[in-house]
Amino acid sequence: MSEAPTHAVAYARDHRRQSLTELKEFIRFPSISAQPRHADDVKRCAQWLASHLRRIGFRDVAVISTPRHPIVHAAWRGAVGRPTVLIYGHYDVQPPDPLGEWHSPPFEPAVRGQDLFGRGACDDKGQMFAHVKALQAYLRTQRRLPVNVKCLFEGEEEIGSPNLAPFVARHRNELAADVAVMSDTRMLAPDRPALNYSERGALYLELELRGPEQDLHSGNFGGAVHDPLQALCETIAALHDKEGRIAIPGFYTDVRSWGRDERARMARTGPSDAQILRDARVAEGWGESGYTLYERLTIRPALTVNGINGGYQGPGGKGVIPARASAKLSFRLVPDQDPRKIDRLFRAHIARTVPSTMRALVRSLSGAKPALVDPKHPAVAAAALAYRKGFGAAPVLLRSGGTIPILSTFQETLGIPTVLMGFALPDDRIHAPNEKFHIPNFYNGIKTCIWFLTAVGAGRNLIREPGQRRGQPAARWRHNQAAQRP
Amino acid sequence: MSEAPTHAVAYARDHRRQSLTELKEFIRFPSISAQPRHADDVKRCAQWLASHLRRIGFRDVAVISTPRHPIVHAAWRGAVGRPTVLIYGHYDVQPPDPLGEWHSPPFEPAVRGQDLFGRGACDDKGQMFAHVKALQAYLRTQRRLPVNVKCLFEGEEEIGSPNLAPFVARHRNELAADVAVMSDTRMLAPDRPALNYSERGALYLELELRGPEQDLHSGNFGGAVHDPLQALCETIAALHDKEGRIAIPGFYTDVRSWGRDERARMARTGPSDAQILRDARVAEGWGESGYTLYERLTIRPALTVNGINGGYQGPGGKGVIPARASAKLSFRLVPDQDPRKIDRLFRAHIARTVPSTMRALVRSLSGAKPALVDPKHPAVAAAALAYRKGFGAAPVLLRSGGTIPILSTFQETLGIPTVLMGFALPDDRIHAPNEKFHIPNFYNGIKTCIWFLTAVGAGRNLIREPGQRRGQPAARWRHNQAAQRP
Repeated sequence: MSEAPTHAVAYARDHRRQSLTELKEFIRFPSISAQPRHADDVKRCAQWLASHLRRIGFRDVAVISTPRHPIVHAAWRGAVGRPTVLIYGHYDVQPPDPLGEWHSPPFEPAVRGQDLFGRGACDDKGQMFAHVKALQAYLRTQRRLPVNVKCLFEGEEEIGSPNLAPFVARHRNELAADVAVMSDTRMLAPDRPALNYSERGALYLELELRGPEQDLHSGNFGGAVHDPLQALCETIAALHDKEGRIAIPGFYTDVRSWGRDERARMARTGPSDAQILRDARVAEGWGESGYTLYERLTIRPALTVNGINGGYQGPGGKGVIPARASAKLSFRLVPDQDPRKIDRLFRAHIARTVPSTMRALVRSLSGAKPALVDPKHPAVAAAALAYRKGFGAAPVLLRSGGTIPILSTFQETLGIPTVLMGFALPDDRIHAPNEKFHIPNFYNGIKTCIWFLTAVGAGRNLIREPGQRRGQPAARWRHNQAAQRP
Repeated sequence: MSEAPTHAVAYARDHRRQSLTELKEFIRFPSISAQPRHADDVKRCAQWLASHLRRIGFRDVAVISTPRHPIVHAAWRGAVGRPTVLIYGHYDVQPPDPLGEWHSPPFEPAVRGQDLFGRGACDDKGQMFAHVKALQAYLRTQRRLPVNVKCLFEGEEEIGSPNLAPFVARHRNELAADVAVMSDTRMLAPDRPALNYSERGALYLELELRGPEQDLHSGNFGGAVHDPLQALCETIAALHDKEGRIAIPGFYTDVRSWGRDERARMARTGPSDAQILRDARVAEGWGESGYTLYERLTIRPALTVNGINGGYQGPGGKGVIPARASAKLSFRLVPDQDPRKIDRLFRAHIARTVPSTMRALVRSLSGAKPALVDPKHPAVAAAALAYRKGFGAAPVLLRSGGTIPILSTFQETLGIPTVLMGFALPDDRIHAPNEKFHIPNFYNGIKTCIWFLTAVGAGRNLIREPGQRRGQPAARWRHNQAAQRP
């Protein structure tokens, strides 16, 4: 590699104070996507971000309207023959409630000790701004970037990205890239970086059981008319067997099983049962027998009842057999489960098992495929190198139990993997009062982003082969993905 | 019997229009006990009722304050050596919501066809006013009553009578009587009167399961931490066996079984399965095998899940494992089940079966014993005679699945049975918009009440034996109650 990254890192170091000042400016916008009264703040924040990208050297910058909040897009295409990196982030934030619990106002960023406090400081303004500052350091010192870059910064992540997947689908050619990177996940500690290489998929459903046409008096009819709430409980109870497995025929057919080596590696690098129980603050684990808690959370699927609604919920009692009862259910899925197939299996199971006294309605709310980044993918190697340069330590490779729907969008629509190169700490209180970003992580994050661009630019394996269609995964990625199957 | 009832009936007939006018005046008070802003209206209604009782000839009338709404008490003790009848009714009404569905304002009583429309027209102002008008007819024509009478009219029935049972307990001597009568139940049709002789008891509980200390992210912990909603469903599902029986050990121990004769009589007089399904507007019955629907509703206990509350219930999805989940459960109990014993059995069952991942809390909201009026009790015979005189037809003896807690209060505290001599029709829409009272039922009800007082006064079996303690059931009643056991 050239000396370019060294110069860029030096620039970033010399401009630390200014970067922090700019990040504070960014945080001051109350870009709360969920609250319609803040729609103008979200828009102003997008415009500020676009101006900032122009100021640091991007010429091709656009604020693109959607049915709700705008997307900021910026591109730099000067690295002919080099890979293209799609940098994803989001500039919208969670509502700051409950306001009374903040020690300083959420949109008046404040430094205390080594932390910057403010809503969005970590999730995701601070983390995405590390990439922006890395791009600036390169552009100011080299007048060029080591890779082609496309920035895709959305304003709707905290409301479920309703307009992002359609946008990506419509602009798959403009967004074509070799790899995506995002910084919106956690490290283990300031000196223990982590790369997530596996996220579970999800299928969110509502199950409603309808019994009588109207609520009935439970004295006049209790014991002779089936209660939809009871039927719902019976239906839900039957969704798990006594071993904690999901009792839907065919549910496990596509679940990939992992060899002894991978499970041993997970046991070495992943959190212990005791650590997971501490994190959850529960005394006892639960779930599918034959697996550690970390395995149950990552390589095994799960089904959670997220909510039940039915009958009388006010104070005191009401003698009612409700006409209907409904539950919100979410599956977490693992490779190679497909949410559409699980949706069909679930509907077939319910149709088969619903008691004849009830009519069942299933509504599918959302689905996301499980996502796996081949740990041997060259972009992961680039990120590992970058972490070593930025944080002085090699990252741990972790699987996560959560779901990042955009990963499967990038995978399916653009055919690229996403490197999850997070800079957040476990105690950063994202979504909660007194959210913070650890300032050393911001600076080391900028350094890491500089090295990530450098390492990707230096690699060859990422570049598409001649004649390969845009939107197709690079050959090496496809190869590794296949190789990883047991 | 003397000619007294004939004169009283003639008086009532001659004063029909005035009685209807007065009932309208009574209905105009929006005596909505549930709504604090109507507390003064409830009080004004009580005062109007007390004045009315004085006007028709009662001297001993009191409006008695309670922590919430007043009780109106009136007594006439001039029938020395004759039985004492406790007439119970309530002058408070349900909220009229939804207001938009009324065809005329709820508190501006309106006659359309043969019906008087207004909130409380039937439940219970109209029905209790039939007794008041019967008393007036007797007092105006005879200057005396054929029995001693104590009126107990409360203003809290629609909010669960919180202050009535303590009041009865404190005044058990003043309220001592030989039998109680109330008119707040249904007939089958204008020419088909009915006497309820059996009401189920009730036990209302809340079951809460607590899992994690706080809500958890269902991606980060789903599959490794037990979900309280799932545990609640499993716990509730296990409360019934596959035969529709309640699966709590010991639950059926005290359930009285009825002989072939009684079950045959029930099959002859009670509603058919088809009728019950029509009333409930459901296509299919449910419940304990081996019993008809009418039996399941009346001589068999039942358990209904009245409400479940837990997790996310808003639109869309939220990936949460809730910290807790709770259900409202109500048992309907039959002789000789005791709600306190069932409460203990339920708590023991939950303590035994709650998974080790959960902490269970059981809250008891209310309990009422099942109540049985011996159909051979002389007061029931008096009511049957009264119906024949008032409506020209003998009443059907019915069991009800519902619960009237005051019955067990009268039974336990005063030691007397309650005759349920209702004048409501199935389509009177009590608790609903456009509540009405069938005016011929009002007039025939007055006649029936006159004949009830007459018949009770003529009977001897009701009078306590010399030396019998006040508050003890009359010997005949005790005898019949014992005789009815299989």
